[in-house]
Amino acid sequence: MLPAQHDWFSEFYQSEGVAISWTVESHLAHEITDYQTIDVYQTTHWGNLMVIDGFVMLTSRDNFLYHEMLTHPALFSHPNPKRVLIIGGGDCGTLKEVLAHESVEQCTQVEIDEQVTRLAEKFFPELCERNDDPRAKLLFDDGLAHIKSLEPGSVDVIIIDSTDPIGPAEGLFGPEFVKDCYAALGPGGIMVQQSESPLLHQALIAGITKNMREAGFDETATLGFPQPCYPSGWWSATMAVKEGGLAPPSEARFTLAKLTTRYYNREVHIGALATQLGRVAR
Amino acid sequence: MLPAQHDWFSEFYQSEGVAISWTVESHLAHEITDYQTIDVYQTTHWGNLMVIDGFVMLTSRDNFLYHEMLTHPALFSHPNPKRVLIIGGGDCGTLKEVLAHESVEQCTQVEIDEQVTRLAEKFFPELCERNDDPRAKLLFDDGLAHIKSLEPGSVDVIIIDSTDPIGPAEGLFGPEFVKDCYAALGPGGIMVQQSESPLLHQALIAGITKNMREAGFDETATLGFPQPCYPSGWWSATMAVKEGGLAPPSEARFTLAKLTTRYYNREVHIGALATQLGRVAR
Repeated sequence: MLPAQHDWFSEFYQSEGVAISWTVESHLAHEITDYQTIDVYQTTHWGNLMVIDGFVMLTSRDNFLYHEMLTHPALFSHPNPKRVLIIGGGDCGTLKEVLAHESVEQCTQVEIDEQVTRLAEKFFPELCERNDDPRAKLLFDDGLAHIKSLEPGSVDVIIIDSTDPIGPAEGLFGPEFVKDCYAALGPGGIMVQQSESPLLHQALIAGITKNMREAGFDETATLGFPQPCYPSGWWSATMAVKEGGLAPPSEARFTLAKLTTRYYNREVHIGALATQLGRVAR
Repeated sequence: MLPAQHDWFSEFYQSEGVAISWTVESHLAHEITDYQTIDVYQTTHWGNLMVIDGFVMLTSRDNFLYHEMLTHPALFSHPNPKRVLIIGGGDCGTLKEVLAHESVEQCTQVEIDEQVTRLAEKFFPELCERNDDPRAKLLFDDGLAHIKSLEPGSVDVIIIDSTDPIGPAEGLFGPEFVKDCYAALGPGGIMVQQSESPLLHQALIAGITKNMREAGFDETATLGFPQPCYPSGWWSATMAVKEGGLAPPSEARFTLAKLTTRYYNREVHIGALATQLGRVAR
């Protein structure tokens, strides 16, 4: 049944009995770094595809969903986000969305593996368009250690744009790291973490939420959104606020921000906040 | 790389270079009917899986998304839906959701292939729970002919719950059928059609919308929602109204309806309506 003229790249997600596959035309890169193995494929219909340790990270065609939904709800949940920190996010797509907000004065990206960014510059240049923005600071360092080094209360928004909770990213899903994020945030500070599939990973989401509550955050919310290249095609981000609430932006604020988004808008934000995790899991 | 203890069922969506696969434990049914070939598999993690002519129709685990989003936005867009018509929908999941609305006095389901319903009763009994509701009328007949036979203005909501626009369902995507729906609807009448993926099938959605406008409908809207078992995991329904608008329900009306949904609610409805098709397609 496979067409003879193309190969397939497949991610087998055995623990949930499902797989997604793409037809690929060429294998553009294969690099074994100090942290992981990175592959880039040219697909027939989805642009380029980046894979880390066998798990799909992004495709050119659909990454806008994830990057917009990880960034804009969090930034709009803070009254005036000026200092933003990204942990992970080496493809720079999240950085690009953060810098679309004019209020942001500085955005530091702490990616452990420099090769992720070097390959993104080459194969996903559209995501790296704002890497030269004077407000952007790209560090290649350990996110866990970086958070500990920060002045308490020195950050407005922390975005955890990590790989899955195995391998190098495992510590980013632990209670210690969440406590360090809490300490680094100022009053009204927001933390947001990519939190896998609302359909498949409810235990993980419950764990993230528990860590956030125990660290002292006032309120948490999990937002659902479509993300075709990840298992189930339905993904989530979990947010927490240090003092305050997690309301979507007013119409006036959203309009003033003049974002050019493809998926995110105020109403999508309202809908994403209404994800009823307990019912989905039934 | 495939586990030895299980087989895989795969839907290869060649024209978009993507495939989805499930691990299956047994092949429960294989029937060649007058209209199509129907298969049912028992999967390892997604309950039962129904496939028609090689295309996935539903799984036990995730069909609630599709059925809720095809039904509730349409019914809430009508001021007082009493007479509902489903074209297709043989698995009875849409019928079940329609009958959750107390205002509905009669719901007729016109499925061309009786075997779809017989297999659903056997392998998806939870979707057929309301088939014996005195308000339900199950016909096994040609939807195109049925619409033509109706008294003008005799229906409040028409739901087109069809297979893909090839094979037996092709006519359900044509302009003639949409005109017949328009004639069958009363003032304020609503038509809704499953309209494939917002990411992959923009031309199809544009065609459906054009047909609706040309038939005389006042307003149209395409709603996006996650649907893991279909290509891209992101699906849509396109609605049209005969005289009037397509507003989500008021909080009071939504609360009064006392629906037990797993995905749909008022805010999800608002978010789904905000799908920006033109931007997604870029």
